[in-house]
Amino acid sequence: MSNIYLSNYELNDALNIYFSNFDFKEKLEREEILTCESCGRVTSKAVYAKISYPFYNSSAMDGIAVKSEKTIGATEKNMIELYENEDYIVVDTGDPIPKGFDSVIMVEDIIKVKEGCVKIYKSVLPYENIRPIGEDIVQNTLILPSNHKIRAVDIGALLCGGVNSIKVYKKPKVGIIPTGTEIVEPALDLKVGDIIESNSRVFSALINEWGGEALRYDIVKDDYEKIKAAIIKAVDENDIVLINAGSSAGREDFTYSIINELGKVFIHGIAIKPGKPVILGKIKDKPVIGIPGYPVSAYIIMENIVKPLLEKYQGLLHDEGDIKEAVLSRRIVSSLKHLEFVRVKLGFVADKLIATPLNRGAGATMSLVNADGILKIPQNCEGLEAGSKVKVNLLKKTNEIKNTIVVIGSHDPIVDVVSDLLKKSDGGYSLSSSHVGSMGGILSLKKQECHIAPIHLLDMESGEYNIPYINKYLKGMDIALIKGVKRIQGFMVKKGNPYNIKDLRDVAELKLRYINRQKGSGTRLLLDYNLKKLGIDFSMISGYEREEFTHLGVAASIKEDDADCGMGVYSAAKLMDLDFIPVCSEEYDFAVPESYLEMPMIKKFIEVIKSEEFFKELDRLGGYDYLECGKIVKVRG
Amino acid sequence: MSNIYLSNYELNDALNIYFSNFDFKEKLEREEILTCESCGRVTSKAVYAKISYPFYNSSAMDGIAVKSEKTIGATEKNMIELYENEDYIVVDTGDPIPKGFDSVIMVEDIIKVKEGCVKIYKSVLPYENIRPIGEDIVQNTLILPSNHKIRAVDIGALLCGGVNSIKVYKKPKVGIIPTGTEIVEPALDLKVGDIIESNSRVFSALINEWGGEALRYDIVKDDYEKIKAAIIKAVDENDIVLINAGSSAGREDFTYSIINELGKVFIHGIAIKPGKPVILGKIKDKPVIGIPGYPVSAYIIMENIVKPLLEKYQGLLHDEGDIKEAVLSRRIVSSLKHLEFVRVKLGFVADKLIATPLNRGAGATMSLVNADGILKIPQNCEGLEAGSKVKVNLLKKTNEIKNTIVVIGSHDPIVDVVSDLLKKSDGGYSLSSSHVGSMGGILSLKKQECHIAPIHLLDMESGEYNIPYINKYLKGMDIALIKGVKRIQGFMVKKGNPYNIKDLRDVAELKLRYINRQKGSGTRLLLDYNLKKLGIDFSMISGYEREEFTHLGVAASIKEDDADCGMGVYSAAKLMDLDFIPVCSEEYDFAVPESYLEMPMIKKFIEVIKSEEFFKELDRLGGYDYLECGKIVKVRG
Repeated sequence: MSNIYLSNYELNDALNIYFSNFDFKEKLEREEILTCESCGRVTSKAVYAKISYPFYNSSAMDGIAVKSEKTIGATEKNMIELYENEDYIVVDTGDPIPKGFDSVIMVEDIIKVKEGCVKIYKSVLPYENIRPIGEDIVQNTLILPSNHKIRAVDIGALLCGGVNSIKVYKKPKVGIIPTGTEIVEPALDLKVGDIIESNSRVFSALINEWGGEALRYDIVKDDYEKIKAAIIKAVDENDIVLINAGSSAGREDFTYSIINELGKVFIHGIAIKPGKPVILGKIKDKPVIGIPGYPVSAYIIMENIVKPLLEKYQGLLHDEGDIKEAVLSRRIVSSLKHLEFVRVKLGFVADKLIATPLNRGAGATMSLVNADGILKIPQNCEGLEAGSKVKVNLLKKTNEIKNTIVVIGSHDPIVDVVSDLLKKSDGGYSLSSSHVGSMGGILSLKKQECHIAPIHLLDMESGEYNIPYINKYLKGMDIALIKGVKRIQGFMVKKGNPYNIKDLRDVAELKLRYINRQKGSGTRLLLDYNLKKLGIDFSMISGYEREEFTHLGVAASIKEDDADCGMGVYSAAKLMDLDFIPVCSEEYDFAVPESYLEMPMIKKFIEVIKSEEFFKELDRLGGYDYLECGKIVKVRG
Repeated sequence: MSNIYLSNYELNDALNIYFSNFDFKEKLEREEILTCESCGRVTSKAVYAKISYPFYNSSAMDGIAVKSEKTIGATEKNMIELYENEDYIVVDTGDPIPKGFDSVIMVEDIIKVKEGCVKIYKSVLPYENIRPIGEDIVQNTLILPSNHKIRAVDIGALLCGGVNSIKVYKKPKVGIIPTGTEIVEPALDLKVGDIIESNSRVFSALINEWGGEALRYDIVKDDYEKIKAAIIKAVDENDIVLINAGSSAGREDFTYSIINELGKVFIHGIAIKPGKPVILGKIKDKPVIGIPGYPVSAYIIMENIVKPLLEKYQGLLHDEGDIKEAVLSRRIVSSLKHLEFVRVKLGFVADKLIATPLNRGAGATMSLVNADGILKIPQNCEGLEAGSKVKVNLLKKTNEIKNTIVVIGSHDPIVDVVSDLLKKSDGGYSLSSSHVGSMGGILSLKKQECHIAPIHLLDMESGEYNIPYINKYLKGMDIALIKGVKRIQGFMVKKGNPYNIKDLRDVAELKLRYINRQKGSGTRLLLDYNLKKLGIDFSMISGYEREEFTHLGVAASIKEDDADCGMGVYSAAKLMDLDFIPVCSEEYDFAVPESYLEMPMIKKFIEVIKSEEFFKELDRLGGYDYLECGKIVKVRG
């Protein structure tokens, strides 16, 4: 149970130290393959043209090949007659120039006299309108240098230069060993305590993308001898070996000790977050790397250590990916102890690329799916202020980010439906949503972090939804409300309602396990309103402090018997097969700056939520009234 | 022999008209595949999580799971004793929380009393240090929408969300039919008139890169019925068919007529250059496209028509690639009649990204290899001035361009050798060279288009090489001369010197076919100097006007019996197995702005040309004296 991380090397130092232990130039084997199958492979030696291309003089025009000396003196007033075969031969573009002829007259410059005889009114110089030998490629010139990743267009030049087979590096073989007693294959039935093995599949896809050849081994239980045997086998069969231990001390000790027993560990612990507990070792002169188990840590190690390693192996320049400058929407605090990788959402809002940090927890595979980029905070930096300009490594294409509607605010299962329908629409737009509650959405609109904020905020005095909040919190902004749905809120309980809950009094009296939504969410405000109405103090609700961020999150906890009751929308209860006690109907709308209504992607958004296909999905989910869906209400003019 | 191009549609109009004839949403078949093999495929429907992940409450820390109510009131002064199994259970990060326990105390906050008994000095709240059910993924939430290209990280989230197989589109099958009587497979022995078939191999690689599945058919001779049969078969076996006709009228007539016989041609001719004579048709509701034969035209059609078509097919947003702003180094004139695609070289020179147009001829496969980007000149634009800011579609990665030494000037075979050795070096630097002659190199330095200009310019008055020219033409610039090689110039003649040439007098008297170098090249100046010395007028030299751009180009023409004599360096003659009559020794050096000497890639350049490996290559090539190679001479201080 003790912390065994020994070192805190800076990332670049660690890479330099580690890589200096290998002679990459000598490591990789070579093979000769067909040029037409070489796309994506890396040349292992310089490729020179074997022939010139074209390898004969050919016509650059449709016309006639002539002897240039016979054309001297031709003018409009003094036309010269030429006879076929003797004075000229008809040629098409690309045809070889027959022996004895040395230039070409374009078809447009010829007057036909009769069969086998033409007149010309222009002289030509020797080699005029001829594509000379080697115009494209000259024999013995360099087509590709060593260490060049072959592209589609390279194949064309290689074939024209007479290079029909080519020497390339063999793909570096990378063995991946997933370890852990609690780790199971995705296909098996799951029981409590099981952890699905997914990292090795992500690793394999990345390695193949980076030019390697991934070989994944079966899961090995936490047993020193078994792991050792697996490593010995993998080292024999591969150029590089990755061991995906968890980050608990026990298991890591195994990896560390085994590598040290069979070879040498150079570095154990790098000053990065996430990803610190990495092990960089060598067995039989081959790189062997212990990678932490958390998916995000593992991904950071893959990108920042395994990718450069594969590049070194193939003699490729480091591909730093696509880096764009963005404006940070929120303050980030970071430690001076490490280089931190922060996943961010990106959006083109009000003509600026805005970066909003995502959850920094290391365990979230969904955060890697949702992230649009990675922001690096250097080791000697305490953090970054909101509004500062930052460089972000993109995880998606710029054009994809430009065509993404950034939605921040209240959660409802219908947002996922809109996201899918948008993506299926002609425009191919994406929707990226963050669930921070209605008030969070309002603030995001104010800070210009998002295009659309879904909200459901009841003004208790007027009984009116949403508009009073916009008036109060978004003063001076021209906001439009795209009407959404009326939806039914209520209490979700297990199927059959075993505690026979009718309202919050039962929850308080029976001391049932309640699960709440986060502060600032409309649903939490609704709970507080109902508690107040019934005169129940929040301390009477056991679990009032437990916060979930989505309706489905609350529903999942009840379904898994981790809570007895929570508030949410009808559709969430239905999706999770729970019972539902209705409390009220509320208005879930989309607030948007009025000027954005003209953006093609916002127009498409409105089109989608007014479509029959969308209504059909709402009916399937249940509990929605879409009578006003897509109607525009301008909040100020 | 008549021009049959009928239409001149704008590119975007053509795409809109053409694509409107297909219902892409209905076209593509779907299949279910294993999630772990789905990287790069495109989802055909929305993917929702089948399970929550984690699907049980688990510990977020190494420590002990406790009942939170038993910890109430614990302080440093009032520690509470807990007993194993009854009050606590030891848990590692990720372990499930045992029934009856509801929070975790970190190992750091525990004091061990004895086996099975600990003291705590802090209370914990319910669910503190617990990773709740669905923290990462909640059941029934959207993991991926439809029409999403699956990435490595997506696979991790899918597997954790219980999605072990996934519905994707089948890859669109693209049949490629190469046609032409003169077209031959690369593997066969070549005879005059043969054209190597390389386009279909480039197409295949591009199609696979864009998510399609290429099926290449055998070459079909120019025969209406044979081409028709091939098209019928390909339409049956594929989703899309590409016919790679040449652009001569005869062959194109076939493609056009056959498509019109079997289906319908919508567009024949688009206002783009190169690539105008494209045919967009439909047979049996499938896209069938006739693509011009010139490699560059064909590539432009692939990028601008076939790629968007494949994207439409897969429901993907158009990937416009990486676009960067650059400064144009030279004026470009363009026609108002068409959108023109100009291949450019890019270089980071003096902190600016400089774009220099490449040869605009359509036939050059090497120009596609050498190009770093493509610049579009709109249809309504007459051209662009030097110095204007332009947007360039990159064909290489930014980082690769940043690490490329731009070399413009005189040609020598050793430049290829340096290029390869640089690429093999630790830095992984590239060298991109354009051969415009020594004077062209001097002007490029002046315009800051290049880093290095190789020159060999003899000042006839002083007998000194290079420095007088720098003094004269680069006034006010601090230039350093990186000394290169002394090399032997002379006349190249066919093996055995059949005309027994001794000097230029023989060339003039025997009226032999001479092949010259371009104006501004040092070798041409050397010829003129020698002609003058011998009192021979240039008009006496037959072929004086024939210009080649490289020593190897001249040598290739002599070897192929297309010329009898030309001037060049010894190594070129040796590479082409020609005889050589030495004329003089000259100094071939590298001019570079003095400030660039500190750039890491220029340092590496100097390191390379001082290396034993380089000298060995020079010895192999022959005719070089490298005694001073790599020495720095500052021309002004």
